[in-house]
Amino acid sequence: MMQIKRRKTRVVRIGRISIGGGNPVAVQSMAKVKTSRVEEVLRQVRDLASAGCEIVRVAVKDEADARAIKAIKKSIDMPLVADIHFSHRLALLAVESGADKIRLNPGNVHKTEEVVAIARACRLHRVPIRVGLNSGSLKTLKMGGGKRRLARGKGLSDIMVKEALDYLKILEKESFYNIVLSLKGSHLIDTISAYRKMSRYCDYPFHLGVTASGLPEDGAVKSSIAIGALLLEGIGDTIRVSLSAPPAEEVRVARSILQSVGLRSFGYEIISCPTCGRCEVDLISKLRELKAGLEGLGVSSSGRPVSIALMGCVVNGPGEAREADIAVAFGAKEGLLFKKGKPFGKVTFRDSVAVLLRELKAIGCSGLRR
Amino acid sequence: MMQIKRRKTRVVRIGRISIGGGNPVAVQSMAKVKTSRVEEVLRQVRDLASAGCEIVRVAVKDEADARAIKAIKKSIDMPLVADIHFSHRLALLAVESGADKIRLNPGNVHKTEEVVAIARACRLHRVPIRVGLNSGSLKTLKMGGGKRRLARGKGLSDIMVKEALDYLKILEKESFYNIVLSLKGSHLIDTISAYRKMSRYCDYPFHLGVTASGLPEDGAVKSSIAIGALLLEGIGDTIRVSLSAPPAEEVRVARSILQSVGLRSFGYEIISCPTCGRCEVDLISKLRELKAGLEGLGVSSSGRPVSIALMGCVVNGPGEAREADIAVAFGAKEGLLFKKGKPFGKVTFRDSVAVLLRELKAIGCSGLRR
Repeated sequence: MMQIKRRKTRVVRIGRISIGGGNPVAVQSMAKVKTSRVEEVLRQVRDLASAGCEIVRVAVKDEADARAIKAIKKSIDMPLVADIHFSHRLALLAVESGADKIRLNPGNVHKTEEVVAIARACRLHRVPIRVGLNSGSLKTLKMGGGKRRLARGKGLSDIMVKEALDYLKILEKESFYNIVLSLKGSHLIDTISAYRKMSRYCDYPFHLGVTASGLPEDGAVKSSIAIGALLLEGIGDTIRVSLSAPPAEEVRVARSILQSVGLRSFGYEIISCPTCGRCEVDLISKLRELKAGLEGLGVSSSGRPVSIALMGCVVNGPGEAREADIAVAFGAKEGLLFKKGKPFGKVTFRDSVAVLLRELKAIGCSGLRR
Repeated sequence: MMQIKRRKTRVVRIGRISIGGGNPVAVQSMAKVKTSRVEEVLRQVRDLASAGCEIVRVAVKDEADARAIKAIKKSIDMPLVADIHFSHRLALLAVESGADKIRLNPGNVHKTEEVVAIARACRLHRVPIRVGLNSGSLKTLKMGGGKRRLARGKGLSDIMVKEALDYLKILEKESFYNIVLSLKGSHLIDTISAYRKMSRYCDYPFHLGVTASGLPEDGAVKSSIAIGALLLEGIGDTIRVSLSAPPAEEVRVARSILQSVGLRSFGYEIISCPTCGRCEVDLISKLRELKAGLEGLGVSSSGRPVSIALMGCVVNGPGEAREADIAVAFGAKEGLLFKKGKPFGKVTFRDSVAVLLRELKAIGCSGLRR
């Protein structure tokens, strides 16, 4: 398989996780309850952790939220990012409370002296800043009708890049380089274009995402295309899939993206055919049984995903089975078991998943997990 | 928004649908029941049609399947493709039965005289052929151990391109050019790479897809990245999202991909935030209510999707609302309605979706549909 040549970026440490500089692309998400409700936040962080989230962000809307970071940090070891809008005072408070990273929105925290104050506090506490632009809150687009139309005509990606560069100047003038960047549009082409352009101007690690991408059924598609296309070009050091859905769903999609492009491995990968008029077994029910069985096997972290093929007929069945670590290619009533590409006798449809799970344990996959 | 510059391809007619040559990228799927069970096939085709499928394929496993095409064709107007493996005789029978396109797998129908016979029959009936390669059934990879490893070492995409070119030679020697091509791998990087390479060698329209991509939760991600990346590069004339799921789900994802990259428009697009600790309303329940309401509005085909934004707070809410055709940006208890980017007064959380739907009808979106 072709390898992705990743863009060279600086290393930025967010608590115990490093991104950039060739580190694994980290998965992040957000808690979706008010940050001052510490118990509820902790419950969501636990869900996120078991889904595979590696960095969690919390919204800091008021002083209570900023102060709650201290209590939250005591109970979690997942790096925590404070999401700041409008108020530089809340940013300073979040840094003091122990946030591992500060996200600033250049669209609403942009007074030079305020940004400078935050940069100084962040340097003191060795806390990185994400310069996080969103198409929905660009400074340029807050202007009145005619001016706004004119600006929009320039192209959203150019506006985002320009606003990002202006902001970086303020930070760099303070010799502050502990920076992560994001340029999220609500349309994927704007988003891809903004990141591509920005990648020519700096070596800061990029946080990838599409903003306001909607319900998971469409948001997952949109995010997969944009984030996937950029990752395939080597762009991206941490990703967040924004979905109008519970946060664990964002993590599931993020991991699926990273594994699909071959940048991370999360236990296993299932290869299975879509079924068609040739298929004589209820393959989809077997796949669900397999997946449930895999969940039960626990947790691991192998070098590459174990590939498991479950195929419905003789057209591509034996071929895909030969390429997988373990597989069953079904015929009419029974299937042929393959291990490391070699046929190993017949299995009945009924027993097939039990056999696969037993074999997976035997080849050392006692801990698989997605 | 950046425009996609599409690869120049020949026009190929599949029944009443033309692909290639700048025609809209067509959505296709497969019936997933035995083709000779005509009533069941017709039920699935009706489901597919109402999901938005434009071309349907059926597996031809035996003579009964090939003959059933005649009966199926009598009851549907969706172009029908016969999926042929192993038997050139079944291909000939499918053409006689009125199939609108024949899909041949070069991995298992490759004797020159057989391919020639099919090409002649197809020319006579003006039926195009899809040369459909799958990584699971490549000729080269059917060789024994050592030879196979050697071939695999060359890279799957090179093998696919070579086998495709060899096959094209047979058809072109017969002056047969009524061809669509596909080169589907079960890994997305192989798939992208094969299509990219092949695009340099010919101007036949491409049918895009990732084979055996698995259950919808991962298969949709994998397919979105591969198909999306290629479409963004201008490659692709018809797409099929293979999922181990009911066929209508494949169509839903396919349409979402096409609309996300801006190549097709299917009624509406929802822009909504992922919600976070700032959001004080249950946005996700409102989004579900909105979606249900939109389904009820009927069918349309406008030039571009109507964008509807439903945003949970003041950070990106007003900004995204200004860019959408119609929107509500929520605050604590009520929201601000926007039409064509301009604020139009407050709405309560409870009434917000009803107001949106009423306004959508008023601006002429009496027929929205996804």
